[in-house]
This record gives sequence, C-alpha cells and structure tokens, in this order.
Amino acid sequence: MSSEPTPDALTQTFHHQIPLTRTIGLQALRTEESEVVLRAPLQPNLNHKHTAFGGSLNSVAVLAGWGWLWCAVQRMGKRATIVIHESRMHYDRGVDADFVARCTSPGPAELARFERSFGRRGRGRLRLDVEVALESEPEVALATFVGTYVVVQSA
Amino acid sequence: MSSEPTPDALTQTFHHQIPLTRTIGLQALRTEESEVVLRAPLQPNLNHKHTAFGGSLNSVAVLAGWGWLWCAVQRMGKRATIVIHESRMHYDRGVDADFVARCTSPGPAELARFERSFGRRGRGRLRLDVEVALESEPEVALATFVGTYVVVQSA
Repeated sequence: MSSEPTPDALTQTFHHQIPLTRTIGLQALRTEESEVVLRAPLQPNLNHKHTAFGGSLNSVAVLAGWGWLWCAVQRMGKRATIVIHESRMHYDRGVDADFVARCTSPGPAELARFERSFGRRGRGRLRLDVEVALESEPEVALATFVGTYVVVQSA
Repeated sequence: MSSEPTPDALTQTFHHQIPLTRTIGLQALRTEESEVVLRAPLQPNLNHKHTAFGGSLNSVAVLAGWGWLWCAVQRMGKRATIVIHESRMHYDRGVDADFVARCTSPGPAELARFERSFGRRGRGRLRLDVEVALESEPEVALATFVGTYVVVQSA
C-alpha cells in the first residue's frame, strides 16, 4: 500500500539503518516529491579548518539522494534496497555553519524511464543531483553532488 | 625541518583535527612515500545491508588521499592546509568486513609538477587515486576513488 513519506519517518529510517547518521546529527526536513532536504549541525562534523569535513558533506549528500528514492519507493507502495553505485562531488567553498543537502526530482523523462524499469523488472537506476548549502542561506550551493543509485525491489 | 611521518602521528592528526574519525575508528597503518593505508572497522560504519555505509567508505577514501599529502608536506618540512576540491567514487561491491583505503603515489611527472608549484608558489593541486578493499583481501578493490586536492602552504 502506498503511503506519503514524512520527514520523521525518513529520519527514523536513517537513524535505525545507519547508526552513524545519529552521530552526524542527520535530520530530514522535507520529503516532497519535488525535493528531499536533510539537515546536519556543523559541530559533530567539524574538520581542522573549523568547517564541515568533506566526508560528512559527502555522507549527507549521498543520503539526500538515497532519501529521495526511499520516498519514491514508499509512494509506489513497494519495498526496495537502494544502493549508491557511483558519485561525483565538487566542493566549492567551506561550509562553516549548520548545513542542508537538497535532492531535487530528476526530469520527467528520466523519472518515467526509472519507474518503468522498476515497475517491470523490479530494478532501476537513477541519477540524482544534490546541492549542499548553509541552512541560513539555502539558495547558495557550496558543494554539488551527482549520484547514480541502483534500486532493487525486495519482498 | 623535514621529518618522516609515522602511522601513529597521522592517526593522532586525524583524531585531533576531525573528531568524527574517532567515531568511525580510523587508524593509519602505513605512511610510506609509495602508499598511505588507512583502516576502519566495519561495526561503527554499518548500513542497513550489513555492509559499510557508502558515506563512510567515501570518508576513509578522502582521508587516505589527504593523509598521503599530509605525509608529503611533512617530508618537505613545510606546513600546509590541504582541502578536497572534487572527487569521484565508484562502488563495485559491498564491503562486509573491516576495510582499508590505500592511496598510492601519483606518477613521477605529476608529482614533480605538484612539488614545483608548491615549492614556488606555496600552492598546488594534486589528483590522487585510492582503492578500498577488505583488510583481509587488500588486493581486491571493492570501491575506487579519485580525488583532487588543493594544498596551500601556511606559516
């Protein structure tokens, strides 16, 4: 049965399935079809330059894409395993305060292709774009991420 | 004054400068000119599939390249800030036990170019390759990472 995902349910899923997400303080803020937004505080993710460690930024970005797919699968009323297959990340500027990662919906053609493949074969690949920004200035991307995920339906 | 870096010194540097590295259990095993090898236990990095979380694999990989540059700067007898500028990661297979990330020395031409730039201008860029493997089977890469780092000399 399909259900509308909520930020709380996604946060609980992260904290339950990936214990490290509790340490990095990960929290889902939005679980819309158009975008999934995650938030993390700077403090547990600090590096030597008093900005967020690049590995933490990558973790939150990869999870924003993962979260977007988790929500999509929930809406289809299915269960699936979602894994990252490859990623690229570009770090433009240091992140010196609490931050967000926003995964936006892919274009309609790419999304339709994914849904068709997943519906017919129980398996699909999808490329997703994520931007990392300060929570206080969410429109200015400080790092960008592109991830390709593989989704396999489970019983 | 130049000094030969040790695994203990690199581990301490990570734990001091990036607190999250303590949570993920990061430890430096080798700090040679030819390679820097880091290790992390599976347990604190688990995901929902009982394999290592992709974000943790990326963190350990990015730090292997960072560690290689930290060692290179130590050998030159200098101090520098090292930041990741961009990265690509390809996840081939799940990592279901304690793992290592190995950064190997770049080719001599690329290394000479970096050393010249860093020596003359106090600033250089270097692209480094890292492989992630099981600690028990280090010759079989399960994920590969390429990172470009920017190194800026500090006082």
